Amino acid sequence: MLNKKTIITISREHGSGGRKIGERIAAELGISFYDKKLINIVAEQSGLSMEFIENHEQKINNSFLFNIAVSGYYSGNIFNKESLLPEDKIFLTQTKIIRDLAEKESCVIVGRCADYILKDREDCFNVFIFSDLESRKKRAVTEYGFNGDTVESELKKADKARNNHYSHYTGQDWGQLKNYHLAVNSDFVGFDNVVDMIVQIAKNR
Amino acid sequence: MLNKKTIITISREHGSGGRKIGERIAAELGISFYDKKLINIVAEQSGLSMEFIENHEQKINNSFLFNIAVSGYYSGNIFNKESLLPEDKIFLTQTKIIRDLAEKESCVIVGRCADYILKDREDCFNVFIFSDLESRKKRAVTEYGFNGDTVESELKKADKARNNHYSHYTGQDWGQLKNYHLAVNSDFVGFDNVVDMIVQIAKNR
Repeated sequence: MLNKKTIITISREHGSGGRKIGERIAAELGISFYDKKLINIVAEQSGLSMEFIENHEQKINNSFLFNIAVSGYYSGNIFNKESLLPEDKIFLTQTKIIRDLAEKESCVIVGRCADYILKDREDCFNVFIFSDLESRKKRAVTEYGFNGDTVESELKKADKARNNHYSHYTGQDWGQLKNYHLAVNSDFVGFDNVVDMIVQIAKNR
Repeated sequence: MLNKKTIITISREHGSGGRKIGERIAAELGISFYDKKLINIVAEQSGLSMEFIENHEQKINNSFLFNIAVSGYYSGNIFNKESLLPEDKIFLTQTKIIRDLAEKESCVIVGRCADYILKDREDCFNVFIFSDLESRKKRAVTEYGFNGDTVESELKKADKARNNHYSHYTGQDWGQLKNYHLAVNSDFVGFDNVVDMIVQIAKNR
């Protein structure tokens, strides 16, 4: 059990196992886990279809909006702003949901720039999980059904998309050491060790 | 005890407690610790005085030399090369010593670009330890006797010198996440936790 409220944000490279590690940490600590689940909440709150969200979520355009979202300028229903682009609507909604969750309860949040969105809170523990390219390729093929012939370029495309999305909405590069409290190579350290050490750090806070 | 030979390299920000953490890890694992001690060995082997080494060690000039050192071009006594600058002589000697130590025994090596010098070995565990500026300032004043009025600029100067030294001899920026297996904010995570988790990871390899 946790001694005090803790929001563990997990940023991860595709194929590093970060999502699974996050799920295990949440289960061990008995706290909520948010990832796809978060998208469901967004879908429900916004009335947008899952397909619409998945299609638009990591597209990029007007970075101006994020600053507005972060500064708390938007206090009402952002969907009154008809001029917003779909991906920005989604991002602003997610920002609000992530803030509400962090206010309410201890939890694990994977991706969604949560480390940046919650950067002014004292109760966040920000983790970055990465891995060697060879291990990521293997995992992507065996666990996520990627095609072995194209897996390397697919992973590089995924990294680039994640970096673009992060830097668009935060103005920072993704995967900068100083944005995290802990960064770990999941293959070198081993999944069990990664889970154990994050659980231990969270408990000892 | 370790199951297999492991060289733990620790790179750290000044004032992050990385050296002390390294000492504790070496003690817990019952393996050797190299830092100042390394300089002593260099001094003995090279016949240079400690004062000479400390004065020149982190000065920078001809990066050409490092590539020669890394490629193993130098197999003889580098001090036959009268044209070498003092800091390059020191660095080349350290490179050789670090390689010999890594070949010989499990150990903890703090600083000295050891992560890069040993990058082709499979038995290295590379760690980066950093901390918040405020904690580093406090520690520098209370533990290392820095002047409170100038501590911030002194630490920034130390970071810059460390980065220059590292990038001069390795051609890479210092503190890039992908150069390490684990990077950790020592204040957030706590010194005891940092020691425990590194010991645990090393034991589980």
